[in-house]
Amino acid sequence: MTVPKDLLLHLIRPEEFRRVEAMALPLNERLRIVADMCRANALAAVKRAGSGHLGSSFSSMDIVVRLYYHELNVRRVGVADPNRDIYFSSKGHDVPALYAVLYSLGIIEEEKFLMLRRFGGLEGHPDVSTPGIEANSGSLGMGISKARGMSWAKRRSGQGGRVFVMTGDGEWQEGQNYEALQGALQAGITNLTVVVDHNKVQSDKLIHHIVDLRDLTAKIAAFGWRVVRCDGNDQEQLERGLIDAAQGGGPVVVIADTIKGAGVSFMEHPGAMNRPGGTGLYPWHAGAPKDDDYRAAYDEILGRVNARLVAAGQAPAALTQVPPVAPHNPVYTLEGEPVSLAMPVGAVSKGTSESVADVYGQTLLKAMERRPDLIVLDADLAADCRVRAIEERFPERFIECGIAEQDMVSTAGGLARLGLLPVVNSFASFLASRANEQIYNNASEKTRIIYALHYAGVIPAGPGKSHQSIRDISLLAALPNMVILQPCCAQETAMIVDYAVDEARENVALRLVIGPSPRRIALPEGYRLEPGRGCILAEGNAATIVAYGPVLLHEALLAGELLAKRGTSVRVVNMPWLNVVDREWLAATLLPGKAVLIVEDHAPTGGLADRIVAALTADGRRLEYPVHRAGVEGYPAFGTPPEALKFHGLDATGLAEKILRFL
Amino acid sequence: MTVPKDLLLHLIRPEEFRRVEAMALPLNERLRIVADMCRANALAAVKRAGSGHLGSSFSSMDIVVRLYYHELNVRRVGVADPNRDIYFSSKGHDVPALYAVLYSLGIIEEEKFLMLRRFGGLEGHPDVSTPGIEANSGSLGMGISKARGMSWAKRRSGQGGRVFVMTGDGEWQEGQNYEALQGALQAGITNLTVVVDHNKVQSDKLIHHIVDLRDLTAKIAAFGWRVVRCDGNDQEQLERGLIDAAQGGGPVVVIADTIKGAGVSFMEHPGAMNRPGGTGLYPWHAGAPKDDDYRAAYDEILGRVNARLVAAGQAPAALTQVPPVAPHNPVYTLEGEPVSLAMPVGAVSKGTSESVADVYGQTLLKAMERRPDLIVLDADLAADCRVRAIEERFPERFIECGIAEQDMVSTAGGLARLGLLPVVNSFASFLASRANEQIYNNASEKTRIIYALHYAGVIPAGPGKSHQSIRDISLLAALPNMVILQPCCAQETAMIVDYAVDEARENVALRLVIGPSPRRIALPEGYRLEPGRGCILAEGNAATIVAYGPVLLHEALLAGELLAKRGTSVRVVNMPWLNVVDREWLAATLLPGKAVLIVEDHAPTGGLADRIVAALTADGRRLEYPVHRAGVEGYPAFGTPPEALKFHGLDATGLAEKILRFL
Repeated sequence: MTVPKDLLLHLIRPEEFRRVEAMALPLNERLRIVADMCRANALAAVKRAGSGHLGSSFSSMDIVVRLYYHELNVRRVGVADPNRDIYFSSKGHDVPALYAVLYSLGIIEEEKFLMLRRFGGLEGHPDVSTPGIEANSGSLGMGISKARGMSWAKRRSGQGGRVFVMTGDGEWQEGQNYEALQGALQAGITNLTVVVDHNKVQSDKLIHHIVDLRDLTAKIAAFGWRVVRCDGNDQEQLERGLIDAAQGGGPVVVIADTIKGAGVSFMEHPGAMNRPGGTGLYPWHAGAPKDDDYRAAYDEILGRVNARLVAAGQAPAALTQVPPVAPHNPVYTLEGEPVSLAMPVGAVSKGTSESVADVYGQTLLKAMERRPDLIVLDADLAADCRVRAIEERFPERFIECGIAEQDMVSTAGGLARLGLLPVVNSFASFLASRANEQIYNNASEKTRIIYALHYAGVIPAGPGKSHQSIRDISLLAALPNMVILQPCCAQETAMIVDYAVDEARENVALRLVIGPSPRRIALPEGYRLEPGRGCILAEGNAATIVAYGPVLLHEALLAGELLAKRGTSVRVVNMPWLNVVDREWLAATLLPGKAVLIVEDHAPTGGLADRIVAALTADGRRLEYPVHRAGVEGYPAFGTPPEALKFHGLDATGLAEKILRFL
Repeated sequence: MTVPKDLLLHLIRPEEFRRVEAMALPLNERLRIVADMCRANALAAVKRAGSGHLGSSFSSMDIVVRLYYHELNVRRVGVADPNRDIYFSSKGHDVPALYAVLYSLGIIEEEKFLMLRRFGGLEGHPDVSTPGIEANSGSLGMGISKARGMSWAKRRSGQGGRVFVMTGDGEWQEGQNYEALQGALQAGITNLTVVVDHNKVQSDKLIHHIVDLRDLTAKIAAFGWRVVRCDGNDQEQLERGLIDAAQGGGPVVVIADTIKGAGVSFMEHPGAMNRPGGTGLYPWHAGAPKDDDYRAAYDEILGRVNARLVAAGQAPAALTQVPPVAPHNPVYTLEGEPVSLAMPVGAVSKGTSESVADVYGQTLLKAMERRPDLIVLDADLAADCRVRAIEERFPERFIECGIAEQDMVSTAGGLARLGLLPVVNSFASFLASRANEQIYNNASEKTRIIYALHYAGVIPAGPGKSHQSIRDISLLAALPNMVILQPCCAQETAMIVDYAVDEARENVALRLVIGPSPRRIALPEGYRLEPGRGCILAEGNAATIVAYGPVLLHEALLAGELLAKRGTSVRVVNMPWLNVVDREWLAATLLPGKAVLIVEDHAPTGGLADRIVAALTADGRRLEYPVHRAGVEGYPAFGTPPEALKFHGLDATGLAEKILRFL
């Protein structure tokens, strides 16, 4: 994630924006220059962060710039005035564009802007704790409903100011949007403008290849809303579009036709998808560009900015060099003292080449070959969920549902009722919560469905709380016929996928970390998957740590290695069964009478610890072990993995010191 | 719930239906007679059950009869054949119509048909364990998605048979329907017919007074589906409509214009809503008619049946008298021996005049007067959620969202962001699960919202598992800034509503029983609401029972009274805080060293017991009490309250015997 020294990053500071604003140029020409200057800053921030969503930040940039530099009253009245105009993005992942605009206006300070996706900086998706951010978003489809609530509140409270909400276009696959259209009209909402950043591309494919929206104008009009359509990357057309929208009153949707990646030739759709040697997929949705791509993109944007400035007889944009990101050198400490371990420095953040998600995809692909009843469902996360290879190899048994988790889950229910075995894929934070009632409804039919909960847990922490999943165990554990399993390594992942497909009699929720494993965890010789039973990964005699998954078992093992330096040895137990506990096994596995620390990649409530303590105290049993818990308290912190784990006391140091405290 | 002896109920048996089928009459005339005979049987079943949804059973009856008697191949191939045609209702509450049709065909046996909403009989909403039922439904908006999964599965498996799904019309307020339309088209589904029972009325109001659907034909067509429209209570028009639907291929929606309550003049919309002395509300959505109304309705239907038969030169329909429902006389027993208690026999099912839900509505109404920032939101359950008086008194602070829980919750989020205090109302089973991610998103903004979770817990058990809510604590307890509270009586309800409005600093989920309180629970003198602290309701020295809510605290107190007859006394503790436990209070309240039984109106996982045990064992503490748990194991049983409670061992007898076992 560090930027090599030979790549210098630069910022265009707010005073440069003020200089452009003061130029005797037509408004739209100034906005074009400002938008490109913001593109340059957003690009630098994303490169520095090592990740971010450039494609839709660039497609939406001209709109966001026009709103803040011309349409909204926020600069005049401030971001806290009850009469302010409100803007927020429902999709949220385009927030680098908004951050760049708020930075250019001095609303977000430079120090924060340079800390995108870093602890104490700016969250990967919007959070209201950031100045100028009006709503938390990142999970799709909620924005119009929330905006109509804001519009209703302004009317009720007699406050001035208008409400603007931006949506993506793929986002219109979420049904809540249509609920919101109906409800807003019924509530007589007038002071609401929805702007659709219609860039035609979802994560990496064209919308009509995922789930076609057909004639979006006709659909929205059929719900009784006025629709205005314009080019969202052309300031003259945007000007006209927003004027049309403002006239005529009533709630209105402005469908702004944009280009994903707009402003950087090789990032622009369709070229970016159809480039020679390309995969046919859009490569710039998320992640940071490589150094050469960064240089080319930055030079192209800046070249356009300076050409406009020079043409106007003005000096080129002044660049301020940004200090490089300090390389991440985790130093393991114990009670403040550094401790050197065998574990290579930096391994925590760099990870190994092992990925449980990859193994999930590979094992499922093998299962598809032997099990013709397996059907894989996806909600526009095929690459992230590692089912792209299945989509390509078995298109006739792959159902792309688009961004519509509820429809996906109920569809799976229908498949299961007719004897097929569906495997439902999405991120845990979306699937377990948004489709929770549909999962319950399916389960109540006593069919079998496999739910693959990807991106489970607190890491990676860059995207922020809309994506980090720390409640999914609690959301599913109370289902009578659902087992929840999380593998800690490649070998266990293969075991668990095969168990879910071939052996399980109930629904199975597979909890999967999305990132690389910090270490390759070796399972004991002859370890087999048995309901409610885990295994010992490291021996010790002072206390037992019970954990699950590659991330926190790594920290637990590291904690044991730290403690060993102090002559304290702890037993580390892997427990992949998160809502099923075999008490006999547990009693035989815990150190008699010794303390137990249960480490959760989950909130402290509703996770494994509740089930272990319930098993140990079942039917009036005395608790023979002092039990301690560590989990993600409060909302998950964002930042690098070490930053987030340290904040929650879940890093090796935090766990080791917790153990020293209670020993 | 018992039918007086002077009201005799009758059934028309399957052989009478066979007789009609054999008559030399035109198909549509036979179907008209069969439909009315099914109406008579559905009416008798609902009257005998004491509740059921007649309005939409009657509006949909002609359609269901036409499907099973003419359109579907089910009678020929049977309900288990892979090549069978599939029909199910997405709304589910119209299932008395389907049961009547399946009974008339001999698919459901008479014994079951007479046990509607009774343990061991037929669930109040469809369940696949009943012969001929193809899908579980009852929570709205999932049906088209599930049906498209079935249609996809038939194509994939090369199975014959068509797929029909019926939806309500108010149900189209749920966004999932629009996800399903998009997804089915993308998946190339052709073998799917959606029939909309378009009766224009929701729970008790016109759809366009709740949330207008506008031109449903145009909306659905804008999603690319073919739409056929016909009169759904006219067999000639239905015949034409279904033929049009079958021709042209592709997925099609048949919008069947129907009359809610069709077939009984005084139950028909619009007359039923605008009757002299009426409330302007539709009175026949749910519940059983009074004896006089029953007689009038039955006579009208039967009169029409017999007029048609006589006109055809046939004998009138033969009626079979139905044994009256045995009056419910709960006898309290202990280890098989009857025990007489002071508690009046039958009180459990009849209840008192106390209703915590009523008190919620009254207290909230008072709060509305002093708190202008309070805004009440509803999802078409205003009467059930006891906010109708608020709707009428404060229409400017009441937002009717229709059947769109996600939109309602996100709208509340927008209101809260602008400083208002929203009170969101729905049934716990819908609100806590379907809108779970929206609740999380709102909570992450650190605003304050009150969620009123009505119909929480296992009672009433008649509607079945789609409505009984036994997971809502687990679904919300892991939220960092959410407290979950459930009152046990009128006095505590008022305290809790006022606390939620005036004192709480976080989000509050109010868990409310919807039925009458089985007893008026008296709180101790000077009891005040303090976070994490409950109160002792009955003294004892052998063990402690901890419970919450009017239903299970009543059973706990009864259990104590039963045990007292054996010379065993138990302390009964009311604990209204379901995810916050004050350990000091608990330690001072439990009997030192004595057993504790925690009784959950919830699944055993994720409820109060987990939180109490966590508190007692926190930070390595030894557990000083043998802890036992009682909760709703598996899926909630349906039936009368005593039947369901007894099944789960949660009735007084079950609890008392559990205590005797571990003492």
